[in-house]
Amino acid sequence: MDRYDNAHIVLLHHPVYNKRGDVVTTAVTNLDLHDIARIGKTYGAKHFYIVTPLDVQRKFVDRILSHWREGYGAEYNPQRKDAFDIVAVRSSLGKVCHEIEINGTGKVRVVATSAAVSEKATTFRSLRSIMQREGGDTILLFGTGWGLAKEVLDQADFILEPIKGTTSYNHLSVRSAVAITMDRLFGIRDR
Amino acid sequence: MDRYDNAHIVLLHHPVYNKRGDVVTTAVTNLDLHDIARIGKTYGAKHFYIVTPLDVQRKFVDRILSHWREGYGAEYNPQRKDAFDIVAVRSSLGKVCHEIEINGTGKVRVVATSAAVSEKATTFRSLRSIMQREGGDTILLFGTGWGLAKEVLDQADFILEPIKGTTSYNHLSVRSAVAITMDRLFGIRDR
Repeated sequence: MDRYDNAHIVLLHHPVYNKRGDVVTTAVTNLDLHDIARIGKTYGAKHFYIVTPLDVQRKFVDRILSHWREGYGAEYNPQRKDAFDIVAVRSSLGKVCHEIEINGTGKVRVVATSAAVSEKATTFRSLRSIMQREGGDTILLFGTGWGLAKEVLDQADFILEPIKGTTSYNHLSVRSAVAITMDRLFGIRDR
Repeated sequence: MDRYDNAHIVLLHHPVYNKRGDVVTTAVTNLDLHDIARIGKTYGAKHFYIVTPLDVQRKFVDRILSHWREGYGAEYNPQRKDAFDIVAVRSSLGKVCHEIEINGTGKVRVVATSAAVSEKATTFRSLRSIMQREGGDTILLFGTGWGLAKEVLDQADFILEPIKGTTSYNHLSVRSAVAITMDRLFGIRDR
């Protein structure tokens, strides 16, 4: 596989905003796991990291993973088992970055996503060409709740442009945002 | 808005296959409603039709819709109210087609989606250019469960090519498939 494909999806549950703009820790949802694991697998992501500082939440994810990887679920639905191969749970973004730096191809770029328009934003096209040209690992950061906290955006190497549809409505679920982002960056299409 | 944007998303709960290949009626899931309504709204779909022959299921959807359109949900999350504006519940695909024919722009093309490779498949690019050239209404049919029954595929005017990622894994959730399909057909991008 092309080195440009060294992508790691990270779903952050802290620090993110709630509806009122406070920095909070959101709950992990079962469906994010299933949908995003399948998207990651489809587009060749190396990992799908679920990041939460809450021990009890990490245990919850571990229980789901073992059901689908080793339990009855693995027999019932082998395709889901395959998708869950790429899933890992970590307590912080720092730990994820460190792990990828140690095991990876050297350079690690952190790309934050946001539904907000930003002057610093990088287009899908230019991120794709940077990845193709420079290789290395790419961490694609997605926020739950009302989006990634400012400190995460500030520390990222790139902020990806928001997904534009054909209307001014920009309230996609994080699952849909991951699907469209992966397709725009890695999808093979004839146009 | 351009006439090419007269798209109607249809999520079919019957006739679809189950895991064993039997034709069944699947249950409506709350999350399909939320995610796909938001996708439809983002990409300017005229409607998102939920189709199920089961009266009790249609009532279930109506309850959810009225919570978010008129109930506490409308006040709590106005963006969700906006997305639910495009949602409608019908008992059969025939009724949806008839309704669009009567209210629409004349020509109605029915486009089925499938994860299976088919010789008859139309590419995303060519469907996009057909819509732009010919105008009219486009019904985009998505199956729940293990996909649309053969009789639905046989009656469609077009079968859209499967979504290809960068791997041979092709088990996206229907929510992800709708997100990527709408982005490929209607998304505005700079490449």
